[in-house]
Formats: sequence, structure tokens, C-alpha cells
Amino acid sequence: MGYNNFMAISVTKASGVSEPFSEAKVRSSLKRAGAKPEIIDKVLVSLTGKLYDGITTRAIYRQVFDSLAQFQEGIHHRYSLKDAIMKLGPSGYPFEKFVARLLDHLGFTTQTQVTVQGQCIEHEIDVSALKDDQHFLIECKYHNRPGTKSRSRDALYTQARFEDVVAGYKSNSNHVNKFHQAWLVTNTKLTSNAVKYGRCKGMKLLAWRYPEKGSLEQLIEANNLHPLTCFTFLDLRDRQSLLQNDLVLCRDITTATDQRLSDLGLSSDKVKRLKAAAASLHG
Amino acid sequence: MGYNNFMAISVTKASGVSEPFSEAKVRSSLKRAGAKPEIIDKVLVSLTGKLYDGITTRAIYRQVFDSLAQFQEGIHHRYSLKDAIMKLGPSGYPFEKFVARLLDHLGFTTQTQVTVQGQCIEHEIDVSALKDDQHFLIECKYHNRPGTKSRSRDALYTQARFEDVVAGYKSNSNHVNKFHQAWLVTNTKLTSNAVKYGRCKGMKLLAWRYPEKGSLEQLIEANNLHPLTCFTFLDLRDRQSLLQNDLVLCRDITTATDQRLSDLGLSSDKVKRLKAAAASLHG
Repeated sequence: MGYNNFMAISVTKASGVSEPFSEAKVRSSLKRAGAKPEIIDKVLVSLTGKLYDGITTRAIYRQVFDSLAQFQEGIHHRYSLKDAIMKLGPSGYPFEKFVARLLDHLGFTTQTQVTVQGQCIEHEIDVSALKDDQHFLIECKYHNRPGTKSRSRDALYTQARFEDVVAGYKSNSNHVNKFHQAWLVTNTKLTSNAVKYGRCKGMKLLAWRYPEKGSLEQLIEANNLHPLTCFTFLDLRDRQSLLQNDLVLCRDITTATDQRLSDLGLSSDKVKRLKAAAASLHG
Repeated sequence: MGYNNFMAISVTKASGVSEPFSEAKVRSSLKRAGAKPEIIDKVLVSLTGKLYDGITTRAIYRQVFDSLAQFQEGIHHRYSLKDAIMKLGPSGYPFEKFVARLLDHLGFTTQTQVTVQGQCIEHEIDVSALKDDQHFLIECKYHNRPGTKSRSRDALYTQARFEDVVAGYKSNSNHVNKFHQAWLVTNTKLTSNAVKYGRCKGMKLLAWRYPEKGSLEQLIEANNLHPLTCFTFLDLRDRQSLLQNDLVLCRDITTATDQRLSDLGLSSDKVKRLKAAAASLHG
């Protein structure tokens, strides 16, 4: 099968940069979401005649998402992962909760918004994570605009905060022998300078598409830890009600009772739909 | 003279916080601008009946500014200092230029936007300032919304950047014996945590109303180094044209020729008005 008709189409990315349309990129995004090969072909065929010069990646995404929903129910929730994480906004707090839940499932013991006295000032640590005798101080950098990147400035203040906290620990015998590490976790990409600085300082960086093995989206996909915001039929009110009540992951829906969900203000129709969608994702 | 009629008026500050109207605050702001005592009284009388519950500080400022312009030509340009600095935006670059010009007049040798190789990454230093064997690395934090404050996060990345740069200097024999210090200069106030962290780390902090002696506005006022954006009759196009061509301070207008100003696109009327205003400020 050939898609030569796509060759000349130029696509506008969220950052404003243009690049030629890439069939390979659409294929790999669908593959990552778990779409079957024959479904991927069907989705690509459905794009015929719908692309135009200057089309945004966003518009292509919508087309693909709609086709996928039509051809392989359930899978399309996975396809919307990047978008779903954006929908954890508008504040950064739900993203912090999401990161903590992710780490809980990976065997860490976490706490969000922990106040710690550093050497100079008191700090609020977004997520504190423990595993054995290792202690991770995690700064979560959430952006609600696609195309933004976390910059070296974010890595710089994360490091300065970490150093002040660790200097504060020196006077605390519970901490003095523990291993500590600063993490910067972001829902967007990192600039190359942020990566360079973070690596130089021994920070752990976890971002969209970074590191190459074990990036944020890979961790989510490999462990089936999608945020419940990937259910696009939930409106802002529903989402906020669920997130505020510590229902953060799709798998939290499978374990929540219908009663609990309706107590949070969801209609019985929505509860049914939500349960079915969660089952199709985790079934 | 009594102003008891003002007593019950509640004023909404830029931050959204309310406080009772304070005659003393208006008096001291006028005094700082150099208004004569009899003019201050006249301006306060002109406010009678113009205040209302919930009035914004901004609206009061406009009233006072207009009265002042009427009663004591020239002085009103000084009164608009905070506003004038805001008008150095929308980007942060004109504020960096302004800070550099301020320091030039105070005997420093400055450079803006200097690229320096740190130990981990390359940094862009907003202003580098030298005085004898002392070297100051200055981060300028410009906010274009009143009521914003520079936070500990800004002080943290300033410090981390400084430390990386100084670590980079260790391999450079020209620098190794020099004294280095990080400065954070901002056009707004600082949070108390930013002050605490900066002082703990030995940074120099220069902000609106900080430190108590030698704050940004005091330096400007005591040395007559007002930015030319305090001439409110200049429109955005005029301002940008002047700033881009390194005319930054009001005193730069007194030394520029009429020809230079008209070459920058100012009408002959504007040139006249600008020259007269600069003369009234520096005369």
C-alpha cells in the first residue's frame, strides 16, 4: 500500500515549526497505543483527502483519534495519552498526584507537597519518594500548553532547592546516611540544556520522550497507568471531582464502586460508560 | 486640614488584597517624587469626592498623576516611576538594558547578555558588572504585571546558575582570584522567602522597596536615573524605537540631538515635547 499523496503535505507543530507529514510517525504513535496492524492501515486510509498543507499536528491527532475510536473501541483512550496528561491541569497539583500514583505502582512510597526545612529556607517538595534507603526529592513541572519545553531554569532551581534541603538534613541524624537524589519530572519535553545540566548534576530526569528507555509515556504504557483524563467523554467538572477525590488513574475506576462514583456527582449513565471504558482499557 | 471623609474608603491593591485608603501613603509617594508640600495638599484636595469603596490603587494613581501634571509640570514624570519601569516591557530585555545603564552611572562597567561557559552548561548572564576586582553576575527578573512578586524560585535558579558559572571559572586563571557575587534585580517586590534565601546565600538583592536603604526606586530617584518610559506621552512605537537604539534613561534625551531623535521616527512636535520634558525633569 502506498501513501504517496501525503508526501508533499507540510505539518505545523505545536511549537510553530513546520515539517513534512510523516506516515511513519502516525504509524508509530498508533503502534505505541496498541492498535493492531490492520487497524493502523485503516486509520491511515481514512486520512486520505483530509490532510492539507499547513495542517496542525493537533488536527491530525483529532482525525486519527476519531478513526481509531470507530475502528478499535478502547484503544483510542490510550492514543490520547499526551492530551490526557495536559488535561490534568489547569493547576500543576493533579500532575503531582499522578506522578505519585505512578511511583506507588512502581514500588515507591510517596508523599505529595511535603514541607521541608532546608539550610536557608523552608521548601515545598512536590513529591517525596522512598525506596529502601533511597530518598528522591521530586520537582514536578507541569505545562498546560503543548509545544512548551521544560528548560534549564527548571533544572537549575530544582538543583538549588535540592542542595538547600540536603544541607538542612546534615543537622538531622535520621537523614544523614541516606542517599538522596533530585528528580525533575515533566509532562513535556526537555531542552537539550536542561538535559545537559541535569545529567551533569546527577539528577534523574523523566519527561515526555526522555530518557530514550523508560520515558514518562513508556512507563505509563508499559505499566498500564493511564490517567483517567484519557476518557475524553468526562467533562471538566467530572474530572476535577474525580481527581480531587484521589481517583487519578484509569485503574482507580476499575476498583471504585458505582456508589462511590455516583457520590462524586457522576450521572448513572456516566458511571456505566466510565466502568465500560476502564474495562476495555484494562480487560 | 483634615481628610476624615477618606477614612472609610477601602482600596483594592494590584494583588487583589483590600486595605483602608491611606492619606499617608499618597503623601509619601508624592513626597518621594519631589512634589512641594503645597502641591501635595492641592492634589489631596482634588481627590475629594473621587474616591469610592473598592477603588483600585491604579485608579487612585491615575487621579493623582493627572492632578500633579496640572499643578506641578515636570514632577509628574517622576511620580510615574513604577509604571514607567513596567512600560520597559513587554520583553525583559529593555529592563536589563536599564539596569546596566543604572550601574554604568554608579561607576560599574557593564555588559548585557553575556554568554559564559559554566561547569555543566553555557549560561546567558543578563548583566555582567565589574568594579575594581569585583565581578557581579546579575539576573534581571522583569514582571509586566503589578502585584506580582519575585519568588524564592527566582533566587534559587539565580544561585544555581551562579554556582555553575563560578565552578566553570575555576579552570580559568583570569578569574580564579576575583571576587564574584550573584545579584537578583527585579522591578517588583520580593517574597520574604526570596529575601531569606538570597541573604542566606550571600546574594545581593535589589528590588522595588528592597533593601530598605538603597532600593531600586531610591537608587533611581537619588541619582535622577529615570527611564524615559516615564514620559507618558510616548506611545509604544516611540518607546520601542528609542529603547532599541540605546536611549533608555531620561537623561539620554538631554544629550541626544534633535536630528538623532527625528531619525528614530519621532515627529518634530514629539521631539520638542520630549526635550522640554527631559529639561523639566533634569533642570
